[in-house]
Amino acid sequence: MAFGWIDEQAELRRRAGLVRTLRPRAADAPLLDLASNDYLGLARHPEVAEGAARAARTWGGGATGSRLVTGTTELHTELERELADFCGFEAALVLSSGYAANLAAVTALAPHGSLIVSDAGNHASLIDGCRLARGRTQVVAHADPDAVRKALDGHGAAAVAVSDTVFSVDGDAAPLAALAEACREHGAGLVLDDAHGLGVLGDGGRGAPHAAGLAGAEDVVVTLTLSKSLGSQGGAVLGPARVVEHLVNTARTFIFDTGLAPAAAGAALSALRLLRREPGRAARAGAVARALHHRLTAAGLEAVRPDAAVVSVRAPSPEQAVRWAADCRAAGLSVGCFRPPSVPDGISRLRLTARADLSGAEIERAVQVIGDTRP
Amino acid sequence: MAFGWIDEQAELRRRAGLVRTLRPRAADAPLLDLASNDYLGLARHPEVAEGAARAARTWGGGATGSRLVTGTTELHTELERELADFCGFEAALVLSSGYAANLAAVTALAPHGSLIVSDAGNHASLIDGCRLARGRTQVVAHADPDAVRKALDGHGAAAVAVSDTVFSVDGDAAPLAALAEACREHGAGLVLDDAHGLGVLGDGGRGAPHAAGLAGAEDVVVTLTLSKSLGSQGGAVLGPARVVEHLVNTARTFIFDTGLAPAAAGAALSALRLLRREPGRAARAGAVARALHHRLTAAGLEAVRPDAAVVSVRAPSPEQAVRWAADCRAAGLSVGCFRPPSVPDGISRLRLTARADLSGAEIERAVQVIGDTRP
Ligand SMILES: Cc1ncc(COP(=O)(O)O)c(C=O)c1O
Ligand SMILES: Cc1ncc(COP(=O)(O)O)c(C=O)c1O
Repeated sequence: MAFGWIDEQAELRRRAGLVRTLRPRAADAPLLDLASNDYLGLARHPEVAEGAARAARTWGGGATGSRLVTGTTELHTELERELADFCGFEAALVLSSGYAANLAAVTALAPHGSLIVSDAGNHASLIDGCRLARGRTQVVAHADPDAVRKALDGHGAAAVAVSDTVFSVDGDAAPLAALAEACREHGAGLVLDDAHGLGVLGDGGRGAPHAAGLAGAEDVVVTLTLSKSLGSQGGAVLGPARVVEHLVNTARTFIFDTGLAPAAAGAALSALRLLRREPGRAARAGAVARALHHRLTAAGLEAVRPDAAVVSVRAPSPEQAVRWAADCRAAGLSVGCFRPPSVPDGISRLRLTARADLSGAEIERAVQVIGDTRP
Repeated sequence: MAFGWIDEQAELRRRAGLVRTLRPRAADAPLLDLASNDYLGLARHPEVAEGAARAARTWGGGATGSRLVTGTTELHTELERELADFCGFEAALVLSSGYAANLAAVTALAPHGSLIVSDAGNHASLIDGCRLARGRTQVVAHADPDAVRKALDGHGAAAVAVSDTVFSVDGDAAPLAALAEACREHGAGLVLDDAHGLGVLGDGGRGAPHAAGLAGAEDVVVTLTLSKSLGSQGGAVLGPARVVEHLVNTARTFIFDTGLAPAAAGAALSALRLLRREPGRAARAGAVARALHHRLTAAGLEAVRPDAAVVSVRAPSPEQAVRWAADCRAAGLSVGCFRPPSVPDGISRLRLTARADLSGAEIERAVQVIGDTRP
């Protein structure tokens, strides 16, 4: 029977305790949220919601076509201009998701005959970009500029190194300055996914590349998502205008995809303007993360020191991670639970995210619940 | 210099007259639109815009996380239930785009050792799905069930055939019943991308698989986009509950992507309910397409007989296609212009889309302009 093999896989998942199920949430869910990527607490900010609503009323529910046909509104162009300006790049291109942005950037910048040097801890979307690209991929050790240098050594043709700026699972930062140096020694480009840096790192949340002095560099391309700090949906690629023009002409997930919905563009633009007006939100997200880490560690838990707003706490096993997260939830706290096959190193953990709008009392309560429910 | 090779490619594009540029449109653009995929004219319908606005106000600008963490709201579940019910399938899964839905379906249903039989005219997102999948891909002649049968012959392990239901470039329909028969003879699954069928074909717009009697079949999986007839953004996979559960557990573009923005889910849900209430819109889109084809042909133009709402008109060369589309635009008519490398067969054409809300006078005017500007 067609798809018969699916049932065997499902049975294996069940036996291993690795079945994933969707848990719809209500609009007024009473859980304390330390699981979302809404780092600045903007997703439900009235200005952001109103930015979405206004855009939908002005432009309609969808972009109606691919960006090169009817799917580019003046709103898209405005968002692109302001994103590029905020992060310090010459140009920006908005896509329907951060996933699509990563597929676009990696495939367009790694043609046949080129080399991609990819960090072992990179996000699934960068990995899929490498798989789709015509270039050859070499995976190198995590956060290791010397490994990148070695991989680039002796490669004569075009090359790019590809890395998250803040790794999504453990929340650790990539050594950007050293990576850029390794690339420059070899004339290689550098593609950085700043999904978890934008809004949290850099001056007023301008992101990790900005903080590392790489903003506007002609050999650096940055990908963003509009779905985390900016509380919306969508992705973007930032870089020199010539690189963006290249993507417009060659990136399949840009050319053959419907433009981002106006409501999502409007929400992201409102969030960006809010962040400009209230730059302290960025620093606050980082401070909350450090406070969380400090108290978790003081409570004897094994947590990774956060470089941005993600705090990762080790769990002894996948089963215990799942139970731990469920117990937190039962106690009114929503936390992420990462386990195989979603973690590159096979280590299960709770994944906590700091939000700029968490109060001291909420941080205290979260640490209390996590400590009380530990396996 | 990093990315130096980009300039050579740009120069080649310039010389070949194949440079693509973005043309932002204003909210009140006076052009007559025969270029968008807004087949039912719902993208700017007040109910659809209000569905987006209401969802943003209730749920916020974004889903805040991946579907398995915080990104599943009750609104997502509601949309999934109503999509599945409308199209006649047991279950549905909503993703951030139709592109992501195709990547999810093909990669999850074509594991290592399996065979994918893919129509030569398939959409880029299905092709990228084939490239990302672990299974081996065999591309077969366009709309040719015997070629599918032959490709499946003698393959012992799991197999799927993959096809658009309505091909996006020429608007011709795939022979669904014969494809299903070929698959069933071999115990192979069938994955159908109904991006251009939903809302136009089948009883009240239930789509091409429904029209072909394949709705709810246990060996058929359908992918949709919410960005065309439903006037929003997003994608969906429909199929047996066990297949959807399999995707939830294994499809990377589902697991590692932020959930669809609530506004997009809300807009699509409003459009779907509107279509249920006004089923005549579906038939009207098809009738407009046939009227367009009839008059264009009567005017001596070479147009492909439409099976759904896309009408393709041949152009003598890429340059002339571009000029033709530009001349139409100058005369107040927006049409699509497809040319290499976006067309599988290398043939340039104008791509016209029928909308259910085009009046007889608008059809007349469109045909007039296209005839007057022909190369
Ligand atoms: C590092 C990283 N890159 C890219 C993405 C994809 O972005 P999006 O969810 O907007 O598609 C994510 C998460 O979703 C991520 O964590
Ligand atoms: C046949 C087909 N499948 C899939 C897609 C992708 O859908 P979306 O634009 O929603 O990503 C498109 C067009 O965009 C299409 O024409």
